[in-house]
Amino acid sequence: MSTTDGFLANAERYAAGFGKGDLPLPPAKGAAVVACMDARLNPYGLLGLSEGDAHVIRNAGGVVTADVRRSLAISQRLLGTREIVLVHHTDCGMLTFTDDGFKAAVQDEVGLKPDWSAEAFTDLDQDVRQSIGRIKADPFIPHTGAVRGFVYEVETGRLREVKPR
Amino acid sequence: MSTTDGFLANAERYAAGFGKGDLPLPPAKGAAVVACMDARLNPYGLLGLSEGDAHVIRNAGGVVTADVRRSLAISQRLLGTREIVLVHHTDCGMLTFTDDGFKAAVQDEVGLKPDWSAEAFTDLDQDVRQSIGRIKADPFIPHTGAVRGFVYEVETGRLREVKPR
Repeated sequence: MSTTDGFLANAERYAAGFGKGDLPLPPAKGAAVVACMDARLNPYGLLGLSEGDAHVIRNAGGVVTADVRRSLAISQRLLGTREIVLVHHTDCGMLTFTDDGFKAAVQDEVGLKPDWSAEAFTDLDQDVRQSIGRIKADPFIPHTGAVRGFVYEVETGRLREVKPR
Repeated sequence: MSTTDGFLANAERYAAGFGKGDLPLPPAKGAAVVACMDARLNPYGLLGLSEGDAHVIRNAGGVVTADVRRSLAISQRLLGTREIVLVHHTDCGMLTFTDDGFKAAVQDEVGLKPDWSAEAFTDLDQDVRQSIGRIKADPFIPHTGAVRGFVYEVETGRLREVKPR
């Protein structure tokens, strides 16, 4: 059985016990979470999220890219969220390579150079601050007064806040 | 108390009960999930995901953008995933506006036009197929033999597969 088929079996169990068919579209807690895609980082367990609570936006690194800024603009403008919570984490894959190195490796294999930056980083706390800065600098995200950034420690399960400099 | 402070209190409880400090970086189930950021869609509950299982990539719409293709390339090339599971959902906010309309509304208010497309869509199943197509057409995502797309029904909790035409 493929992993996807296993997911489908789980989804049937989820539907069988489902009792939340009347939740509204806007997130109940008025927040958007931006986190790394890492498999060890479970925003639902970590932050205590339930269905209907918050938007969850995730990509490789939890980096604030144009797509994240698009998602946050939609989240705030159309669906009323006001707080933003950024979550990076220790032992992140993005710390293990460079943008140039990744591009070169792909080009060696595929013959084409990616038309995007891999968005690698070398310092976790600094990249959290970078991500906060990108949000605050964005003219299309209206509410940037409640943006906080964190590092999740995959070794201990703890969440540590990154303070602005 | 802000929502973010409430999340932090939950995170302390999570850390107190944490027993998964030795999970490896590569996802145990070899899969990446690409889903909409919608608050009602909980991929952990729905697909039965636990810490360490799968990459989870999310944005407004679950649309396959350049950032999602970047994340999938990193997921497969550096962290060994092979299956891709796309999840859109009923009652999606992306069905309620158009790219042009959203841009015009933002420009009216901010005075600047966003330099990104909002990625709205009018037909759920068609956008799932569009997303599968974008992945298969991408030269930088090496493994596209196991890409399947689904619509999650927020009213019933059910997951329905979208078959290729």
